[in-house]
Amino acid sequence: MAKGFHIFPVGVIRKTGDGAFLRIYKKYRKALVGLEQFSHIHVLYWFHKNDIPQKRAVLQVHPCHLEENPLTGVFATHSPMRPNPIALSRCRILGIEDTVIQIDAIDAFDGSPVIDIKSYFPPQEPPETIRFPQWKRNT
Amino acid sequence: MAKGFHIFPVGVIRKTGDGAFLRIYKKYRKALVGLEQFSHIHVLYWFHKNDIPQKRAVLQVHPCHLEENPLTGVFATHSPMRPNPIALSRCRILGIEDTVIQIDAIDAFDGSPVIDIKSYFPPQEPPETIRFPQWKRNT
Repeated sequence: MAKGFHIFPVGVIRKTGDGAFLRIYKKYRKALVGLEQFSHIHVLYWFHKNDIPQKRAVLQVHPCHLEENPLTGVFATHSPMRPNPIALSRCRILGIEDTVIQIDAIDAFDGSPVIDIKSYFPPQEPPETIRFPQWKRNT
Repeated sequence: MAKGFHIFPVGVIRKTGDGAFLRIYKKYRKALVGLEQFSHIHVLYWFHKNDIPQKRAVLQVHPCHLEENPLTGVFATHSPMRPNPIALSRCRILGIEDTVIQIDAIDAFDGSPVIDIKSYFPPQEPPETIRFPQWKRNT
C-alpha cells in the first residue's frame, strides 16, 4: 500500500444554542491574521465518526441517503463515507474573536475536528457553464 | 498534542505534454461512478514537498510570494505552507477514461498525491455578497 500521511486537528467545531463556531487552538492564532478581510471560508474538517476501516472502505452510496438516487461513487458525492473522511464546507464568517470564528452554519457534528481553513475566492467562470446531475437539483 | 489522523493517497497527479491528469488507483474505480455527470470537481491533494516539520510550522506568509502583500496568516491564504499541507483546487473535467480523469489545469507538481475528489456544485449566493482583500484582486 502507498505511504500515508499524518494530519492533526487545528481546532474543533462547536455548535451551541448561540450558533456555530470554529474554536481554533491558541497555538495557531497567528495563522488567522487577515481572515477578517474575507466574507467566506472553506472549512476542512474530519468526519471523525466515519474514521473506521468499514466506513472508509465504502465506495458507493445513494446520495443524500435517498434510495431513489442512483448508486453513485463517493468521489461524485459529498458523502461522509469515503477513503479519506475529509469534509469540505463553504461558510460565511459572522465574526472573529481571538481564535474563535463564528460561522453561519455547518453540516457537522459538535466536536468535529477542524483540520484546515482556507480563504474563499469566488469562481471566475459563469455559473451556466457548471453542470451537475438531476439528483443534486432535487436536494 | 491532540490525536492525529491518517490519510493515504487515492491516486496521483500527472502533468505531461498532453495535459493534466488525475490517475486514480484501480482499487477506487467504483468510487468514480457518476462523476461524468459533473463538469467540475474539487481536487484535494497533498503538498508533499511541504510535509516537513519546518514548513508545517510556518503560520504566516506574504501571499503569492509577493513581498508587497501584507504578512498574512496561512489560514487566510492558499499557501502550501500550513499545519496540514492539504491543497484544494477546483478543476474542469475534460474527460474520464477508466480511472484517469483529464482536467483543464492544476497548480500542482507532477507526482503530487491525490487524497480526495468531490463533485462540485456552484454556490447559491450571489457573487456580489462575497468579499475578499485587495491583494487577491491583484493576482
